[in-house]
Amino acid sequence: MAEAHSLEHLVQALRRLPGVGVKSAQRMAFHLLQHDREGALALARALDHAAATVQHCALCHTFTEDTICHTCLDPRRDRSQLCVVETPADQAAMERTGAYKGLFFVLMGKLSPLDNVGPKDIGLQKLFERIDAPAQTPTGMSEVREVILATNFTAEGETTAHVIAQALKGRGVVVTRLARGVPVGSELEYVDLGTIAHALVDRR
Amino acid sequence: MAEAHSLEHLVQALRRLPGVGVKSAQRMAFHLLQHDREGALALARALDHAAATVQHCALCHTFTEDTICHTCLDPRRDRSQLCVVETPADQAAMERTGAYKGLFFVLMGKLSPLDNVGPKDIGLQKLFERIDAPAQTPTGMSEVREVILATNFTAEGETTAHVIAQALKGRGVVVTRLARGVPVGSELEYVDLGTIAHALVDRR
Repeated sequence: MAEAHSLEHLVQALRRLPGVGVKSAQRMAFHLLQHDREGALALARALDHAAATVQHCALCHTFTEDTICHTCLDPRRDRSQLCVVETPADQAAMERTGAYKGLFFVLMGKLSPLDNVGPKDIGLQKLFERIDAPAQTPTGMSEVREVILATNFTAEGETTAHVIAQALKGRGVVVTRLARGVPVGSELEYVDLGTIAHALVDRR
Repeated sequence: MAEAHSLEHLVQALRRLPGVGVKSAQRMAFHLLQHDREGALALARALDHAAATVQHCALCHTFTEDTICHTCLDPRRDRSQLCVVETPADQAAMERTGAYKGLFFVLMGKLSPLDNVGPKDIGLQKLFERIDAPAQTPTGMSEVREVILATNFTAEGETTAHVIAQALKGRGVVVTRLARGVPVGSELEYVDLGTIAHALVDRR
């Protein structure tokens, strides 16, 4: 495919997407140019528009096109609870449960020293400032009384939760963590041993 | 992620890429906006540029930015041989072998009735015209004497090769097919039975 330089550039640009190698990038470029040029132009427009308009919510750090996102502005939310998640997708998962009515703080990542992701890269400072100075937030919201750590149950997620829990000690907030245990609908035989051990320790 | 409409549009646009579901699209959008906005803009430019400039070679139907691609214009190529492949990636694989010095015809697809891909969709007519009227091509190239069918050895690729072979009967060209057999470097124990059976029949 050395013929078309713009095709080669497109393949290189597609390779910057996570999880896309050279074969996938070639297949994508081929598909767009052969079958869906309209899709290619639509994607170009969406990229330009998102890159220009999407910013971080001043309160919860999630992606939004406004200064403060809809969730943070929603007056029906319980402002005493703050659920800390890694990504907007995790927030969406929490929302779909319908079991949580408090506010969120979206880290936009997790601590991962091996990938050079430190506390400054994931909005930890913004989280601590939020908890320390709640009265100064633009909406004058009441104080956060409980921080629910809902980072993933991976090595990095657990580390992130631990670091946040340590930092929040003595700041006058209750810090809780999502319960570990056997997933609903699963059979013990197929659940990993670490999960069963945790479920046994945390039995109620 | 209902907060940012332009983010939602970006996810939808990314889902038009082949092999990208909603989770992958969200991960891609998240990565671009959080870590690589420059990459997002570069991809947008590459998409625009490729969609505007990439066309089909008038002779071999592959992607090119010119009327006729470099391979077709190369005077060192053997113009009596025409290798028919499905995609530019297949052509690149043939080229990498260094074992072929003839010309190519790139179908840009394969016959696939289940996907509504018929003869008109993959440039078959252009191939037949090329073989029937070689003297009228812009470069006045000499006649094609051998057509080498190098479509993939899948059900659709075999069907495509069969249809081309049938259509070329009586047009005064030799039609050959890449040999089927045991891949170089492989152990018989791990080769599928159909391949071994073909290798046995075509033994030399």
